[in-house]
Amino acid sequence: MVSFESDYIAGAHPEVLKKLTETNFEALPGYGTDKYCESAKKKIIDTIGLDGLQVEFLAGGTQTNAVVISTMLADYEAVIAATTGHISVHEAGAVEYTGNKVISLPGKDGKLAAETVKKYMEMLAGDDSREHMPIPGMVYVSHPTEYGTLYSKAELEALSGVCREYGLKLFLDGARLGYGLKSRETDVTIQDIAKLTDVFYIGGTKVGALCGEAVVFTKNNRPPHFMNSVKKRGALLAKGRLLGVQFDALFTDGLYFRISEHALDMAERLVKMLEAQGVKFFMHSPTNQQFAVLPDAQLASLKEKIAFTFWERYDETHSVVRFATGWSTTEQDIEELAKALKETKVLSDL
Amino acid sequence: MVSFESDYIAGAHPEVLKKLTETNFEALPGYGTDKYCESAKKKIIDTIGLDGLQVEFLAGGTQTNAVVISTMLADYEAVIAATTGHISVHEAGAVEYTGNKVISLPGKDGKLAAETVKKYMEMLAGDDSREHMPIPGMVYVSHPTEYGTLYSKAELEALSGVCREYGLKLFLDGARLGYGLKSRETDVTIQDIAKLTDVFYIGGTKVGALCGEAVVFTKNNRPPHFMNSVKKRGALLAKGRLLGVQFDALFTDGLYFRISEHALDMAERLVKMLEAQGVKFFMHSPTNQQFAVLPDAQLASLKEKIAFTFWERYDETHSVVRFATGWSTTEQDIEELAKALKETKVLSDL
Amino acid sequence: MVSFESDYIAGAHPEVLKKLTETNFEALPGYGTDKYCESAKKKIIDTIGLDGLQVEFLAGGTQTNAVVISTMLADYEAVIAATTGHISVHEAGAVEYTGNKVISLPGKDGKLAAETVKKYMEMLAGDDSREHMPIPGMVYVSHPTEYGTLYSKAELEALSGVCREYGLKLFLDGARLGYGLKSRETDVTIQDIAKLTDVFYIGGTKVGALCGEAVVFTKNNRPPHFMNSVKKRGALLAKGRLLGVQFDALFTDGLYFRISEHALDMAERLVKMLEAQGVKFFMHSPTNQQFAVLPDAQLASLKEKIAFTFWERYDETHSVVRFATGWSTTEQDIEELAKALKETKVLSDL
Amino acid sequence: MVSFESDYIAGAHPEVLKKLTETNFEALPGYGTDKYCESAKKKIIDTIGLDGLQVEFLAGGTQTNAVVISTMLADYEAVIAATTGHISVHEAGAVEYTGNKVISLPGKDGKLAAETVKKYMEMLAGDDSREHMPIPGMVYVSHPTEYGTLYSKAELEALSGVCREYGLKLFLDGARLGYGLKSRETDVTIQDIAKLTDVFYIGGTKVGALCGEAVVFTKNNRPPHFMNSVKKRGALLAKGRLLGVQFDALFTDGLYFRISEHALDMAERLVKMLEAQGVKFFMHSPTNQQFAVLPDAQLASLKEKIAFTFWERYDETHSVVRFATGWSTTEQDIEELAKALKETKVLSDL
Repeated sequence: MVSFESDYIAGAHPEVLKKLTETNFEALPGYGTDKYCESAKKKIIDTIGLDGLQVEFLAGGTQTNAVVISTMLADYEAVIAATTGHISVHEAGAVEYTGNKVISLPGKDGKLAAETVKKYMEMLAGDDSREHMPIPGMVYVSHPTEYGTLYSKAELEALSGVCREYGLKLFLDGARLGYGLKSRETDVTIQDIAKLTDVFYIGGTKVGALCGEAVVFTKNNRPPHFMNSVKKRGALLAKGRLLGVQFDALFTDGLYFRISEHALDMAERLVKMLEAQGVKFFMHSPTNQQFAVLPDAQLASLKEKIAFTFWERYDETHSVVRFATGWSTTEQDIEELAKALKETKVLSDL
Repeated sequence: MVSFESDYIAGAHPEVLKKLTETNFEALPGYGTDKYCESAKKKIIDTIGLDGLQVEFLAGGTQTNAVVISTMLADYEAVIAATTGHISVHEAGAVEYTGNKVISLPGKDGKLAAETVKKYMEMLAGDDSREHMPIPGMVYVSHPTEYGTLYSKAELEALSGVCREYGLKLFLDGARLGYGLKSRETDVTIQDIAKLTDVFYIGGTKVGALCGEAVVFTKNNRPPHFMNSVKKRGALLAKGRLLGVQFDALFTDGLYFRISEHALDMAERLVKMLEAQGVKFFMHSPTNQQFAVLPDAQLASLKEKIAFTFWERYDETHSVVRFATGWSTTEQDIEELAKALKETKVLSDL
Repeated sequence: MVSFESDYIAGAHPEVLKKLTETNFEALPGYGTDKYCESAKKKIIDTIGLDGLQVEFLAGGTQTNAVVISTMLADYEAVIAATTGHISVHEAGAVEYTGNKVISLPGKDGKLAAETVKKYMEMLAGDDSREHMPIPGMVYVSHPTEYGTLYSKAELEALSGVCREYGLKLFLDGARLGYGLKSRETDVTIQDIAKLTDVFYIGGTKVGALCGEAVVFTKNNRPPHFMNSVKKRGALLAKGRLLGVQFDALFTDGLYFRISEHALDMAERLVKMLEAQGVKFFMHSPTNQQFAVLPDAQLASLKEKIAFTFWERYDETHSVVRFATGWSTTEQDIEELAKALKETKVLSDL
Repeated sequence: MVSFESDYIAGAHPEVLKKLTETNFEALPGYGTDKYCESAKKKIIDTIGLDGLQVEFLAGGTQTNAVVISTMLADYEAVIAATTGHISVHEAGAVEYTGNKVISLPGKDGKLAAETVKKYMEMLAGDDSREHMPIPGMVYVSHPTEYGTLYSKAELEALSGVCREYGLKLFLDGARLGYGLKSRETDVTIQDIAKLTDVFYIGGTKVGALCGEAVVFTKNNRPPHFMNSVKKRGALLAKGRLLGVQFDALFTDGLYFRISEHALDMAERLVKMLEAQGVKFFMHSPTNQQFAVLPDAQLASLKEKIAFTFWERYDETHSVVRFATGWSTTEQDIEELAKALKETKVLSDL
């Protein structure tokens, strides 16, 4: 079945798979100490081209969020995130499980504003009982956000400024980073992110890898004994090569960015097709996730033809659904979706 | 360089890699809900052939130990393990990190005796301050152990009996299970293990997979909301297919057991070669890990030719080193090792 | 200095102190196994007069919340609370530290509505990604709330009904329970609470004890090995008698309720005095905590004469402050406050 | 019944109780910010008379161990203790619950030798897999130990030296510190302890208080936001005065040391009496806890007359039992025990 269910519906991009195959028989040391991990780290650092970068690989996004937050924060610190942030709602409490509370503040279109953080910190400073409250030590943002939206450079600079003012670390969850960096509507480069944040990650799972996220500590600030902390959280792969080889491929000949551009091209076609069919969007997204409002009456029949994701209720008779593109999305897929939407269209709507 | 460093030096067994390649382009749902996970689970259950089995996949061994122990124990319970057990020493405190204490009791040759557990439980029962002590809820054994040794069926039955007597769950860490099941010196079958334990796992990472362990709950006793607990521990892969496809391949045409037999054949040749060279063994191992005592004077030069693992000091001038075989070990490798040992031999030893 | 800073400004009520003194020289066993703990438990159970009650003592409120929630919930469960709930904001993340996430939902006047819980549970039930979200296992309410307000019997019944419908435990934080039970505006009895909740606690620290909270499990549902869990959280006092003796005194001759009535009488006088002075209230409170809106210009000078607590900003030139009464509050104290308010009054306000 | 069950059988020493009574009606701020906490801290610092001391109060011993260890260690660090150490066996896993593993190493007579720590650290340094093992960050010793024994100054200096060599913090659990400092067989002063350790605590619960331990950070090294961490662990008392007032009394006119001397005098008489009766000691203790070997046949009848504590089995027909003295022990108590021992003596023994 044609699927727009997510950007992790397919296996690895062929170039990634090819490299896994080519290197399969080599005898390599374990736990990420192999030459492909080294090479991949170097390529990522060279791609960014700044001083002070350190790269580490982990297997998945929630794991990365929990490991990064808990190793970079002191035990008494908490992390601030938008109420719609992935760590606030969709990680089963993984961050709190490590001992650091998530302070959820209201955002807009999935984004957390510098002003919101600033006001919270000012409120705390004026509250005599602040030692009874979790002490913020970090701000978490996702870019693209869970709604496919993007921070502008000015917004990131403002967040970074507030973080510095209040001694907060800034962590950018880049599970879908490529789709942000290559969006036609962004003015944010990977260098901007490296400069403005303390740590961010370059998502692999959703951008062509079988699994894997590359964490970039941007200021020579990798926590001490990081490997031990990864092991302690059950996140250390014996065959660390699995991550190294994949990222080595992703950062050879700009594959990571080519994949991103392809998915964005497909998303653009998708948007045009949906607009042509008169479908209403839940919010404007300049990346590879598109959130459409469809009548509930159409969903069941559409589901039989196309895979997609229910996101949330819109109103009593409509739902928000997500269509995501990825490295494997084809023009043919979009045509199939167009056809299916027509066939399942309900007469009177919106 | 020829490597006996571990059983995770190479990538995936070719049949596993082939299946990953063949299924790579299929669009599949995420988080382990795809058809290959289903198929792999069914094949594992059919291989064992007992009622009440439930299978779940995780990525690595330490992760599996931490997830299984913490989801099967109540918060107030602790797990008993040999002092040499993997969870006691080599997991960076991953089990304690989940909140359940590891009670380490002395073993022999890596094995924990039923009598040792029984005596501990009797001591506790007679101690008025037992509510001040961690309350045992589980016994953890590894099979093969960290020293390559195996429990006999009688030993496992005795452990299982003591566990039932005291209401303890029995958990068998099978990171290298295949090498135990196919050992020429074992009388323990996978059915025995399924009957005698409450939960065990079939290690994939060390038996031909890129990553992955298959947890088998043996008495319809998978903890409720297991997927949520896996997510909460950062252990849920978005592309769960990565685990399903590999285990599907491993349990097709007995591949898992063929890999195990190959590694054991290679280990047998290795042992004969070492014996022929007069190398002393640290202890007898009937599986794929062999522990040899070598003079320190030889280690440095040997290391330049062959990769292997330092295990522990033997005496002031000798070390215990590990040679492990796996799916990728060849007769040629053993010949290379033989040659290297001869070339680096120190004159007067032992 | 006269103080309305809190209801824990003074030591123990004289009758409590007397009992501590009288029993001081008796040799008693430790860890809460003494006869005064037994006697106090019996008196509390007799006071409530229902079947299935089990009582345990702990030292403080945050400790009690963390112990009760983490011992009654499974590892994968979370607790729902109002965003203004004590566990949501003022316990430094103590509940999350035990591993269970706090899901904060909007309340009104410090109270969480049954309808709010119901809608959240319905939203979850309809969300395909619900296994990626914390799984609610309990609802937490405080009565009186952090704003001194009270649930009506109908409101508690509605909450209890929703909890039963969705398999949620209901936990009532009664740090100030006496002031709720004896309020002139309540229709809720301690029997109602015992019937409608799964667990609640009778606060001692804020109602005449030096320290101590009495947890009441209402349905023979005390978690197994509770003493071990208390020890594990560092909450077990060697001289458990300290708690037992105090609660024995508090539940002798209705002292707990006499203390509560006294504080409520004083609160009533306080309210009348404040009204007479034209002070505006932040919200109506029928208990011993009164929240007044005062001009910032007055606060500094008032602070030199009277101890009270800043609560939160009201607007740019006003603050909400709390005046609390307790067992030691006297009519003289209120007169002093009246005098101080007059002396510090700023001319043009509100 | 006459009781030698522990050193926490009675309430507060009369001078402590008197101060609690005298200060009972004063209105004081909460959470340990009152003047008695301040005064008590100053008195303790003055008693030690060194620079860089910081004092904080907590309620009980296990709580103190868990709070101190988890706030002074990084998340990736573990604490080394003797296998008989309180944190190793009798705290229900409270330290591990905070996330830091306890590494238990063999001791002798309850004491951990510097050489044992050194060898462990050397072993680690030579082990390639050390990043897979918990990373020691602290050494925990109790003084007196759980068996009433004491470290000599030379032994503490050796431990302190090894700790500095390997970058380990040294933490001394002084739950019974007074009985060590005032023992006739010690050459260790409180100044020695303050100089040689990074942190230690002065036990109150077992030396005349109702509850309370005074933690002394010795090198201006109190962890940041310590109050927040205490709150997060549920250990912050609203009426912090309860701890401050008691320690203020204990450190007025040398009460803490007078209590200790009294208990040691009583222990000396106890030992003489037991020796006169031909009772065998399990090990020599120079402090207030005495461990005697008694025939099982005598225990039941003795228990009817005297309260004491079963410690552990000695052999098939004998047990080790503990007799402890404290501030409330009288010569009359010892005479009663003598009489009871005679009356219950079994004919042929040992």
